[in-house]
Amino acid sequence: MPPGPLNALTDLPGVAVGHRTIRRDGIATGVTAILPHGGDLFREKIRAGVDIVNGFGKSAGLIQVRELGTVETPILLTNTFGVGSCADALVRRAIAANPSIGRATATVNPLVFECNDGAINDIQALAVTGADAYAALEAAGPGPVEEGAVGAGTGMTAFGFKAGIGTASRLMTLDGRAFTLGALVLANFGVPGDLVLPDGRRPGPDGAAVPERGSVIVILGTDLPLDDRQLARVARRAAAGLARLGAFWGHGSGDIALCFTTADRVAHDAAAPFAAVTRIAEPLIDLPFRAAAEATQEAVLNALCAAPATPGRDGRLFPSLSDWLREDPIA
Amino acid sequence: MPPGPLNALTDLPGVAVGHRTIRRDGIATGVTAILPHGGDLFREKIRAGVDIVNGFGKSAGLIQVRELGTVETPILLTNTFGVGSCADALVRRAIAANPSIGRATATVNPLVFECNDGAINDIQALAVTGADAYAALEAAGPGPVEEGAVGAGTGMTAFGFKAGIGTASRLMTLDGRAFTLGALVLANFGVPGDLVLPDGRRPGPDGAAVPERGSVIVILGTDLPLDDRQLARVARRAAAGLARLGAFWGHGSGDIALCFTTADRVAHDAAAPFAAVTRIAEPLIDLPFRAAAEATQEAVLNALCAAPATPGRDGRLFPSLSDWLREDPIA
Amino acid sequence: MPPGPLNALTDLPGVAVGHRTIRRDGIATGVTAILPHGGDLFREKIRAGVDIVNGFGKSAGLIQVRELGTVETPILLTNTFGVGSCADALVRRAIAANPSIGRATATVNPLVFECNDGAINDIQALAVTGADAYAALEAAGPGPVEEGAVGAGTGMTAFGFKAGIGTASRLMTLDGRAFTLGALVLANFGVPGDLVLPDGRRPGPDGAAVPERGSVIVILGTDLPLDDRQLARVARRAAAGLARLGAFWGHGSGDIALCFTTADRVAHDAAAPFAAVTRIAEPLIDLPFRAAAEATQEAVLNALCAAPATPGRDGRLFPSLSDWLREDPIA
Amino acid sequence: MPPGPLNALTDLPGVAVGHRTIRRDGIATGVTAILPHGGDLFREKIRAGVDIVNGFGKSAGLIQVRELGTVETPILLTNTFGVGSCADALVRRAIAANPSIGRATATVNPLVFECNDGAINDIQALAVTGADAYAALEAAGPGPVEEGAVGAGTGMTAFGFKAGIGTASRLMTLDGRAFTLGALVLANFGVPGDLVLPDGRRPGPDGAAVPERGSVIVILGTDLPLDDRQLARVARRAAAGLARLGAFWGHGSGDIALCFTTADRVAHDAAAPFAAVTRIAEPLIDLPFRAAAEATQEAVLNALCAAPATPGRDGRLFPSLSDWLREDPIA
Repeated sequence: MPPGPLNALTDLPGVAVGHRTIRRDGIATGVTAILPHGGDLFREKIRAGVDIVNGFGKSAGLIQVRELGTVETPILLTNTFGVGSCADALVRRAIAANPSIGRATATVNPLVFECNDGAINDIQALAVTGADAYAALEAAGPGPVEEGAVGAGTGMTAFGFKAGIGTASRLMTLDGRAFTLGALVLANFGVPGDLVLPDGRRPGPDGAAVPERGSVIVILGTDLPLDDRQLARVARRAAAGLARLGAFWGHGSGDIALCFTTADRVAHDAAAPFAAVTRIAEPLIDLPFRAAAEATQEAVLNALCAAPATPGRDGRLFPSLSDWLREDPIA
Repeated sequence: MPPGPLNALTDLPGVAVGHRTIRRDGIATGVTAILPHGGDLFREKIRAGVDIVNGFGKSAGLIQVRELGTVETPILLTNTFGVGSCADALVRRAIAANPSIGRATATVNPLVFECNDGAINDIQALAVTGADAYAALEAAGPGPVEEGAVGAGTGMTAFGFKAGIGTASRLMTLDGRAFTLGALVLANFGVPGDLVLPDGRRPGPDGAAVPERGSVIVILGTDLPLDDRQLARVARRAAAGLARLGAFWGHGSGDIALCFTTADRVAHDAAAPFAAVTRIAEPLIDLPFRAAAEATQEAVLNALCAAPATPGRDGRLFPSLSDWLREDPIA
Repeated sequence: MPPGPLNALTDLPGVAVGHRTIRRDGIATGVTAILPHGGDLFREKIRAGVDIVNGFGKSAGLIQVRELGTVETPILLTNTFGVGSCADALVRRAIAANPSIGRATATVNPLVFECNDGAINDIQALAVTGADAYAALEAAGPGPVEEGAVGAGTGMTAFGFKAGIGTASRLMTLDGRAFTLGALVLANFGVPGDLVLPDGRRPGPDGAAVPERGSVIVILGTDLPLDDRQLARVARRAAAGLARLGAFWGHGSGDIALCFTTADRVAHDAAAPFAAVTRIAEPLIDLPFRAAAEATQEAVLNALCAAPATPGRDGRLFPSLSDWLREDPIA
Repeated sequence: MPPGPLNALTDLPGVAVGHRTIRRDGIATGVTAILPHGGDLFREKIRAGVDIVNGFGKSAGLIQVRELGTVETPILLTNTFGVGSCADALVRRAIAANPSIGRATATVNPLVFECNDGAINDIQALAVTGADAYAALEAAGPGPVEEGAVGAGTGMTAFGFKAGIGTASRLMTLDGRAFTLGALVLANFGVPGDLVLPDGRRPGPDGAAVPERGSVIVILGTDLPLDDRQLARVARRAAAGLARLGAFWGHGSGDIALCFTTADRVAHDAAAPFAAVTRIAEPLIDLPFRAAAEATQEAVLNALCAAPATPGRDGRLFPSLSDWLREDPIA
């Protein structure tokens, strides 16, 4: 399937991505923000489905997304111990824009995903603050997405290589109309030696003895009209993309995928008692299934290729996949 | 909430219910058929959601209903060992009407629910045949539903009393329009002594020592427009109705609820790539939640009240709740 | 089933409960801490199972408990917007005690539950701090548990009455040995007029028109040996206790139950590759099922009875159920 | 990881596999039986976990396996419309051996999995009978497993090639002891053109336009001691093996995995109220995770390599992967 013009989640009209990178003595971490649309997400929620591939993770907000099928804040990605700060920042931001939250209306469900960047970052420092979350949100915009060691991806590694943020997209045609499915991943998973490239090559030293302690977050977005159940089905296919890279969704890896649609919005205070959700005829869902697997696989590869070699906290170097590819005599 | 004119699942326009009762030496069992609409369910599927309250059960078809959100055959209720015969009958009937099944198109997912009526019925005889399934389907019609020891309910017991088939309904008003939610239960659950009537009375001898080996199936139907996720949420509320009767969803009880909507249909061969599903604004869903709990609770009470005292296979009498109510000095 | 000597979760040997109540202008909230044992929970985890009755909630940590079946921090209860602060406090406390967290070993999964106390508390103030979380943890001890408007329960309401923290327990005998199952609830749910007392009385004005915006958290603990799957089954029965009170698990109510066992512990750094988990023979599980439903129901009633009448932020009085019971001419 | 001596599920001591192949005019189908041990499975159940990768399937018995974590009959594989006959056969066989079933004790949960072999087999004929199920059970034995177009695999296809039954195994060493994990697959999935061999080659014509209408069943067995939750986690990794082959778990494919352990048994009538379940320390579970993914992937390839080219009902030839490999100039 062909990629979109930017080969990025931001090929989806209205979607904005922003990074806040934090680097100082021992600290190499950050926040990445995804805004599914430019309006107020609390008032105009988007619909989403979730798949917990392996639940060794500390993300916030998923229970409610599963129950209600809606996202009502921007989506933040950060390190494991930054979840509290980012969640609080999303709550404060939502209250500032909607003073009725916690008053007449219900509360708000902050959505924050995480991976453990402790191999490179001094995660014990709890360096991520609410200000960093705000900075990522303010930095968000359309257009090309910076990949690799940036934002939440600053300290992340995968398959023994330096990794981080990656993105990709796929175009689909249905009924004469063009649709896009984009993926943005926070890649921090995979046992060294397990990585398989699409051409069958296996970069990196054998590392079967190294237990997997990472995670991977896959955020899928599409403008295809899908209902809540269909969105969860599409989200599940992200795991196929991960497996094609050689992952087996290791015990210590919090592998979580979410898929949202921008095809419609859910009003917080619905004026009408009924609303229509447009969805595709179920047999056609193989189209976004395939796009989800492909875009996830490629987004991880893009994260790996974009990140430069970086030393870990213990002095061990996390090499760059780009360097490996350049030097591989077979290639 | 007020009941519908029949206080039955058949208050829902287009829904038909039919019974096939099997009684001969040692055999006291049967089949109950629910047809959500009068057309071909394979070609025009209905949407449904499921809740597995306690999965000690052998029902057929639920995995696919959960994945796809659709029912594509009539719904049959029977005894535990009648599931195979009933499922085969539904397959044969679907093929007869749709010769493309198993050829060009996909297969068909028969939906059969069961409880264990072995306390009264010689369940080892595997007495239910495909002909019995057909007979229940042919007997199906609109109008009042026979309750108690009839159809699949012939040999069922609950809380130590004779039980079986029960039904009830609730009317709802939304946006000036009237909607109905109906329940039909196959009641075969509950420890003797645990039953609590709405007024607090507790009929029956204390029986905490008797382990629960029954089950209860709750089929909810509504003409309220609900999406697939919402239907599963409503189905979950059936369990609240059961708990109000004193049940704690015992280990040995296969307690399963399904809720379908007649508000729209899903074409097997969709001409259009997109379709709209109408759903209620989520905060209004408390209305069908309440209706589901109430109708389930009352349907079980109706099953208990309609069934006459019946001896079990071991000679023990399963009394009639009606008799108990008539004799209760407090009432 | 008979209650334990304290009729409290703390009837379970080794379990400690502590409250931090926060009251100042407009603020009426707090934190309640449950310590399943007195050791280091990260190094010696306890096993637990979860049931999401209705996922309209923002609790932290549940995804991982479901995947791994373990709790590795104390359990904190607080208001919806206190989750971030409480989670951060648990992370900092775990790192302080285990400097390897985020280094060689994995990260830590803070477990925090919440309800929305915005009807009484100025929840927008985000008044709960890490210091409050620490204070609740330090206040934790065995013995009688203060109930009602205390700790996380300070600003909570249920069925239109003032509510908050409640607890109860049940004793079980198996194989000649005595076991305990305790419940501690944070009760903040239920539509006014829906409450049903065990004797059938229905306190309070009819309030069907008031949408449910609360939640209820049920923490069950037992010393009965149950495996991970069995713990989730027992947790599910908390919902039966809630339904018997008249709840139908409303749309806007985050109703979540967790059941842990103190029968054994799971070492973070297991010396041995294999370990034995003792569990009860499955048919005997009806015993803790019944205890879970009963203890949950009674714990909510205890929360309602212990809490004094309290004015809400809008001036409306949330009456005391004790007052109602005292004045009810029928009682 | 190294394979076992037979590279088959039967490398697991005590596990027996048997086939019943049915071939006559238009009929090309069958039954495959797996007996996890040689005793009475109802009296001595085995423990198992399930993963529903994609629930477009009609398998029988999974609801109860998920709730109770036990398998209490042999496992049968057959075509979609043979489920009823096979389930009935398992019920009759269990009653014959245990006359108390349906009397004093509970009922029995027959476990039957299916794929749609309608591309080659006249599935509308409902050719599979109880006698066929018995024949497969009686044919079961230890030792090498016949693969390809045999038993339930007789009419199955995958990725446009003829497929069917495949098996593989992996050896693991833990604590100085040897353990085995075996996989047996009924392979009937995959879009033509999507198949990826481990070396990166992509056999077959591009077939993205052909919707997937198959399914794949993966039965994993191990003698590693795993608890119920761990077994479900291992079962989930079968899907990684499928994805590595190029599958994205298509809409119309019922992709289901079950993993059982022979490490212990669960008595139907437990004499003791408590029993110990041995399990591995959770961080070591990456070992069976990896084995599950590898064995599943290889079992499918073995199914493809073992099956000879076969004409479909519409005259189209389903080629043999072995022939393709022999002819591939690159190989």
